[in-house]
Amino acid sequence: MADAGQRNPLLKQATGRESAELAAFAAGLDLDTVPEEVVARAVDFFVDWAGSALSGRGHRAIGVLERYAEMMGPADGCAEILTNRRATSPVFAAIVNAAASHISEQDDVHNGSVFHPATVVFSPALAVAQTIGASGRDFLAAAIAGYEVGIRVGEFLGRSHYTVFHTTGTAGTFAAAAAVGRLLGLSASEMGEAFGSAGTQSAGLWEFLRDAADSKQLHTAKAAENGLMAAYLARDGFTGAKRILEGKQGLAAGASSDADPAKLVDRLGERWALAETSFKFHASCRHTHPAADAFLKVVVEHDLAPGDIAAVTTHVHQGAIDVLGAVTQPQSVHQAKFSMGATLGLIATHRKAGLSEFAGVLDDRSALSFIDKVEMVLDAEVDQAYPGRWIGKVTVTTCDDRRLEGRVDVPKGDPGNTLSWAEITEKARALALSSGAVERGELDPLMDRLWSIPEAEKIGFLLPRRRSEDG
Amino acid sequence: MADAGQRNPLLKQATGRESAELAAFAAGLDLDTVPEEVVARAVDFFVDWAGSALSGRGHRAIGVLERYAEMMGPADGCAEILTNRRATSPVFAAIVNAAASHISEQDDVHNGSVFHPATVVFSPALAVAQTIGASGRDFLAAAIAGYEVGIRVGEFLGRSHYTVFHTTGTAGTFAAAAAVGRLLGLSASEMGEAFGSAGTQSAGLWEFLRDAADSKQLHTAKAAENGLMAAYLARDGFTGAKRILEGKQGLAAGASSDADPAKLVDRLGERWALAETSFKFHASCRHTHPAADAFLKVVVEHDLAPGDIAAVTTHVHQGAIDVLGAVTQPQSVHQAKFSMGATLGLIATHRKAGLSEFAGVLDDRSALSFIDKVEMVLDAEVDQAYPGRWIGKVTVTTCDDRRLEGRVDVPKGDPGNTLSWAEITEKARALALSSGAVERGELDPLMDRLWSIPEAEKIGFLLPRRRSEDG
Repeated sequence: MADAGQRNPLLKQATGRESAELAAFAAGLDLDTVPEEVVARAVDFFVDWAGSALSGRGHRAIGVLERYAEMMGPADGCAEILTNRRATSPVFAAIVNAAASHISEQDDVHNGSVFHPATVVFSPALAVAQTIGASGRDFLAAAIAGYEVGIRVGEFLGRSHYTVFHTTGTAGTFAAAAAVGRLLGLSASEMGEAFGSAGTQSAGLWEFLRDAADSKQLHTAKAAENGLMAAYLARDGFTGAKRILEGKQGLAAGASSDADPAKLVDRLGERWALAETSFKFHASCRHTHPAADAFLKVVVEHDLAPGDIAAVTTHVHQGAIDVLGAVTQPQSVHQAKFSMGATLGLIATHRKAGLSEFAGVLDDRSALSFIDKVEMVLDAEVDQAYPGRWIGKVTVTTCDDRRLEGRVDVPKGDPGNTLSWAEITEKARALALSSGAVERGELDPLMDRLWSIPEAEKIGFLLPRRRSEDG
Repeated sequence: MADAGQRNPLLKQATGRESAELAAFAAGLDLDTVPEEVVARAVDFFVDWAGSALSGRGHRAIGVLERYAEMMGPADGCAEILTNRRATSPVFAAIVNAAASHISEQDDVHNGSVFHPATVVFSPALAVAQTIGASGRDFLAAAIAGYEVGIRVGEFLGRSHYTVFHTTGTAGTFAAAAAVGRLLGLSASEMGEAFGSAGTQSAGLWEFLRDAADSKQLHTAKAAENGLMAAYLARDGFTGAKRILEGKQGLAAGASSDADPAKLVDRLGERWALAETSFKFHASCRHTHPAADAFLKVVVEHDLAPGDIAAVTTHVHQGAIDVLGAVTQPQSVHQAKFSMGATLGLIATHRKAGLSEFAGVLDDRSALSFIDKVEMVLDAEVDQAYPGRWIGKVTVTTCDDRRLEGRVDVPKGDPGNTLSWAEITEKARALALSSGAVERGELDPLMDRLWSIPEAEKIGFLLPRRRSEDG
């Protein structure tokens, strides 16, 4: 404990009320006080999330979770598993939809917290909203509470946490608890109890990266489940630690060495962290994106073919090396999304690293042979700006010995370089179609339903139920 | 990551095969190769566990979890919730029974790992054995696998881990995965995948102690659930990290600074850690027991009444101060079990600190007023021996100014000072009756069923189902 305290010097400055203040904010969030453009952006992220969730259908890992839900859960219910259109209790819908919405690596990300909010917020919030018949506005208020909480917890846990722990799993548990707690109408003190139960369940380790294992989806599934459970238990009187984040034996004491308690309560109600969240443009791990954008710029500007390029040095932050460094030769499509070389290989080959490019990557000899040309080098400027800004810098050496520098200060999908309504719609449609989760004829009504969520009086199923033999 | 690596110097000596070897041992455990006395001791712990589980009926926190199981789970199934006799799917029975069996603080404990095995092993194992119709011998093999794995993981994670993390929650997830994995007949490599999924869900923080919150029971519930889920997922092909314990971004890297990988594979198949496990005699936190035994010895030897005593200094290990130091004036019966002062106060008053003494502690003026007379002081000898040996040392100062020293080298309930068949039976009967979970007339057949578990061809329900209106 002494050890843990010493490791987090800023933790000593905690007031001991940070967890409670954040909980009170989430419990009291009133949609009328949220700027209109923030609410609109929440809808954008919801549409984007639904595409990601639907794209998860058919993945082996998602199929296993669907079977688990069938084995352990009720045969019917008011919550919808999007990938197989089964109805169940909210916890099992939250589990499967959270895993499904994180497997294509196309769900949104908040730069400063290195945290994927949508997957851990919308999955449990939709399941609970369907179950209790919440309105679209209540659903959006809950989602915004989830974003604001999860992002601040991620920022609080800091860079040291992220070196070993998957922040989307750990901070995500709080995000899910906040969203579900807001839907269940928890009081401030009940939300505090929910945070206590959420934090003491927080988990998720990066070790799986080395083996291309299925844990990344398990992390979002469990964050969604555990946060939901924490909120339901708190509603019924189950108690938790009051200083679960900043306390002497709390999450930061155990799993961080640079936690800053001020981040937990940073401008609550004034700063809307949701609006800082980025859409993913490339279908790969976010840590590849800045370099991918900078590289794409060079490739287009100088009209280079893969064979024109002798080497690429990407100048990156330490987090990119920590997360991507484990992957040398990708053994699966999912692992390829964590390979800087494979991502740049696809861009060199197709000038795009989207869903369909990655789907074919394991047979893409041009992209795969490009991997050996790519190296990552720690860059002081990029690393210092991170995670507030994700700068992309590459040096491309051509076969005729030119040195071409590429730089992008705001990666595509960031708030300063965001996707348009048409791009969001097109991305969601492509994701939903890619897996066969939705037939072409179902797309228009689905997109209408998604975009009109703010007007929904009661959130129902997003899709018509399939006949059971289609399961 | 570098930070985490440096924090665990011994981790560098890992072969990288420790997780896999431990998993292979659990998958291959053959009851015919386990010494008879170890199997018999497993039955003792099962009987002891069932008493604890039944004693959980009626606790507020357990009621909340029962409602959660009803809301989220199926209305029927093959697994039995012992506290309300409802049938459900195995995961919900595991959740409620694990929480229920840890709330009276009477379940067993392994000294060296500071880990409570029964609650996280028998709860999921019984639920799954009932569901798949396993035999008593298969059930016991699974339980032994759970004990051996959980204890070694706890020892591996070490003292630094325990300062912030509740080892029964974290190591317990592996114990549950091993037991359930063995029941499901996982291969060695599948068990390895299950460990990967278990470890990346491992959680549980001590912060709740300061608020007397319900998290301790949540930790055992979730360890049981998450381990069970990891095993079921692995059976269906879901993968996990292969070096989840010893890897560079594994559990020890994130949550320990003194992890010793050799402990994970310590004499597998030769040393039976289950047989080192202790029964709990006093109804309080295990960290109070050595001092409580030593104090009781002094009280009896010198025939002291509470009023004869001016002060008691307990000479303890650091872990006792870390866990018990947070409690000053207990606000609940459960918190009183974490108060050295209240525990010694009951012993001074009643010469006993059992279930019924603790049940009345909040109105026990003699015991409560004793709290201020008790202090804990770190003792070098006790601390060095810990956690291998839990030495009890107290100095009692009487009102007539005598200084009386008390010492106990092997606390009651330890293998060297264990409970007899009659004491185990009597303890389980008293626990089961205490909560009203079992009527007096049901006790004999229940005890017969518990003791005859090795002969069971198929593990069925332990209790007759109640009529539904009795819920």
